[in-house]
Amino acid sequence: MVELKQVGKLLSELDYSEIDARDEQIRSTIANRTGAGNDFLGWTNYVSNLAEEEVTRLVNCANRLRKNYDCLVVVGIGGSYLGARAAIEALNGLFPSDPFKIYFLGNTLSSNYTYQILEQLRGKRFAINVISKSGTTTEPAIAFRLLKQMLEEEFGHEYLKDAIVATTDRAKGALKQEADHEGYEQFVIPDDIGGRYSVITPVGLLPIACSGVNIKAFLEGVKQAEIDYSPKKSYKENLAYKYGATRYLLYKNKHLPVEMFVSYELQYAMINEWLKQLFAESEGKDKKGLLPDSVTFTTDLHSVGQFIQDGSPILFETIINTKLPQYDITIHTDKENLDGLNYLADKKLSYVNQKAFEGTLKAHTEDGNTFANIITIEKMDAANLGNLFYFFMQATAYSAYLLDINPFNQPGVEIYKKNMFFLLGKPGSKK
Amino acid sequence: MVELKQVGKLLSELDYSEIDARDEQIRSTIANRTGAGNDFLGWTNYVSNLAEEEVTRLVNCANRLRKNYDCLVVVGIGGSYLGARAAIEALNGLFPSDPFKIYFLGNTLSSNYTYQILEQLRGKRFAINVISKSGTTTEPAIAFRLLKQMLEEEFGHEYLKDAIVATTDRAKGALKQEADHEGYEQFVIPDDIGGRYSVITPVGLLPIACSGVNIKAFLEGVKQAEIDYSPKKSYKENLAYKYGATRYLLYKNKHLPVEMFVSYELQYAMINEWLKQLFAESEGKDKKGLLPDSVTFTTDLHSVGQFIQDGSPILFETIINTKLPQYDITIHTDKENLDGLNYLADKKLSYVNQKAFEGTLKAHTEDGNTFANIITIEKMDAANLGNLFYFFMQATAYSAYLLDINPFNQPGVEIYKKNMFFLLGKPGSKK
Repeated sequence: MVELKQVGKLLSELDYSEIDARDEQIRSTIANRTGAGNDFLGWTNYVSNLAEEEVTRLVNCANRLRKNYDCLVVVGIGGSYLGARAAIEALNGLFPSDPFKIYFLGNTLSSNYTYQILEQLRGKRFAINVISKSGTTTEPAIAFRLLKQMLEEEFGHEYLKDAIVATTDRAKGALKQEADHEGYEQFVIPDDIGGRYSVITPVGLLPIACSGVNIKAFLEGVKQAEIDYSPKKSYKENLAYKYGATRYLLYKNKHLPVEMFVSYELQYAMINEWLKQLFAESEGKDKKGLLPDSVTFTTDLHSVGQFIQDGSPILFETIINTKLPQYDITIHTDKENLDGLNYLADKKLSYVNQKAFEGTLKAHTEDGNTFANIITIEKMDAANLGNLFYFFMQATAYSAYLLDINPFNQPGVEIYKKNMFFLLGKPGSKK
Repeated sequence: MVELKQVGKLLSELDYSEIDARDEQIRSTIANRTGAGNDFLGWTNYVSNLAEEEVTRLVNCANRLRKNYDCLVVVGIGGSYLGARAAIEALNGLFPSDPFKIYFLGNTLSSNYTYQILEQLRGKRFAINVISKSGTTTEPAIAFRLLKQMLEEEFGHEYLKDAIVATTDRAKGALKQEADHEGYEQFVIPDDIGGRYSVITPVGLLPIACSGVNIKAFLEGVKQAEIDYSPKKSYKENLAYKYGATRYLLYKNKHLPVEMFVSYELQYAMINEWLKQLFAESEGKDKKGLLPDSVTFTTDLHSVGQFIQDGSPILFETIINTKLPQYDITIHTDKENLDGLNYLADKKLSYVNQKAFEGTLKAHTEDGNTFANIITIEKMDAANLGNLFYFFMQATAYSAYLLDINPFNQPGVEIYKKNMFFLLGKPGSKK
């Protein structure tokens, strides 16, 4: 359901012979789970193996929360936060009319942000979806404590049982233990899927369903993607791998260290944040990897646009483009026409945005020297977004293996934690 | 009011002899307005020359709008948008309790975003602050048309006169002409200050005042900054120039192409966006310049953090750090302690965030190889933020002149517009 087009003067210079030589081996590494991090390839066929009853339980849980509570607080960080928020904002927009609001907490240690969210929630009958494999990650664990305390004070301990849903390990950990003891409804974070690949599991599915999105359609999109971007298909007929191969070549042979993710919708900004985690944690190791960055046009054409057009030649673009908008507006005639906009009268705003995309693409790739991967979906809906998420996950695995990097660990994330725990005097922590 | 600390293994390797040789000349270029783009140095002493009556008129206008209307829509893009939003979010937070809400429109061509904002506004008695030098920039001009149409349909044409405030050119342009004709209250965008340096003019001041911020304190912070970071002071005693010189050397001699702006507050994200415009448009020319990027920690330690710790060595960090939070929360004891957090009992959340900062800094600069500029203010308040904005403006001018680049034009921004106008069939546009 994804189209891929590649433009730019560099296109003719890209030499895919290394890919031709390695494609079969890389695909076999993914398909047969023989490479580094192979314990974490569960996402490749998770959705097609997902039991129908589990989907029904997710939908029923979401409906129950939407019906019985004022709003939902999703507690999680990293992969337990970004995918769900990316989907919810991309599909529902930044100012949805749905009265059931979704808040995110446990994604920061900021006392300012936490205080203000808690003040917003005070007096509300809210539900919590706490998402953590261990239950001891500092940010979500603190937020979960604060939220439970507030609810207990306002509504008593018995309120918690039905208001809290835990998405956690199937067998072990602090959150699992608490959920069992308190009787919270539970969903499982699979053992063989890491956080940044977990948006297609209950980690993403429950919050997305709570926002009113049809997760069955989302899962259909992922199922289709399992076929579209299957490791059985060579990069020549597999768009995820074609894209993954190209970004590898741009990095390795053209020495472009930055991949700039571009969209023309402010509500896709969190998709870009999800992509940043996916690529930065999967590839940013051993002093290697593309730095994932992002802009939203036309907003940022009046900002980073100048640099992309004419600054240091260190980046290429990967654009997420949608053909049809979710909402549209017609520009009307103004009899004074002081602003000179009457040439746009009776045009749709989405048409103007699309022409801005086309004009910018030409400016960057023809008038300038940028290379662009254009990833197009027909419309931002649940099925296409599911497809798109999986497309990028397969592309990441392929790219990282080309770089000889384990796409599924994140050793660098532990170092700041170790230092922080020591400074905080956590029992057992070491310098 | 800004402190600057620099850490990292590269520190001892930085050779400032080029700066020693050029410092006096660069400072004279700024002070005496003799360099490229010297027509746009008005911001250097704008605030100390700002008439008291003009400040009073801004404050009175803001009070009138807050008193008479439900909310305010700020219409602008680029420099007519980013500074105000950065200040409003940094100072008031992302979930302010103030019932007078501020919306931003005219910063995108997205029909989805525009539609949803218009739906939010429907039925509300809102005011508009339209900010545009010409009045014909596509994004704000379209938004302004749509908003006026909605207000006219709901409340009649006579509603507009008091509800609209125009921040525009002192003498010419479509918006100036309309404002004169319709009798809108007006504020002036000075001729000698470009958009990305205009947050200290009515462009930023009016929306900031409308959000309830004390702009007199903000202006006092800028005035102090005119002294603190005066071009009379050599980079050895001028922190803005010390920082500007360092980032130039990291780019030029250490071949680091990316500057990563870091904060530990989600509500500073728009300060980072303001910085991106300031630096990308000022420096990103002639195939030169640092790419400005940004992260918010600890959130993004579970994302781009892995890359910064251990990925391609292409960046340095510039951290905006605040010593005191605006709000704080105490972590409480939990008798079960399943999450293992009791070692933090009775600690403030801001303390934990500060230790995360310290632990991360060590992880990146000692355990890793990153260089960091740490820019510290005592607290995020109006005076410190005014000071900080001006600090970065002086640093930008100094850095760009070191690069032999005009800090005050943005030729690359025009190319996409030209292409877009041609595709849209704008009268007089050329391929």
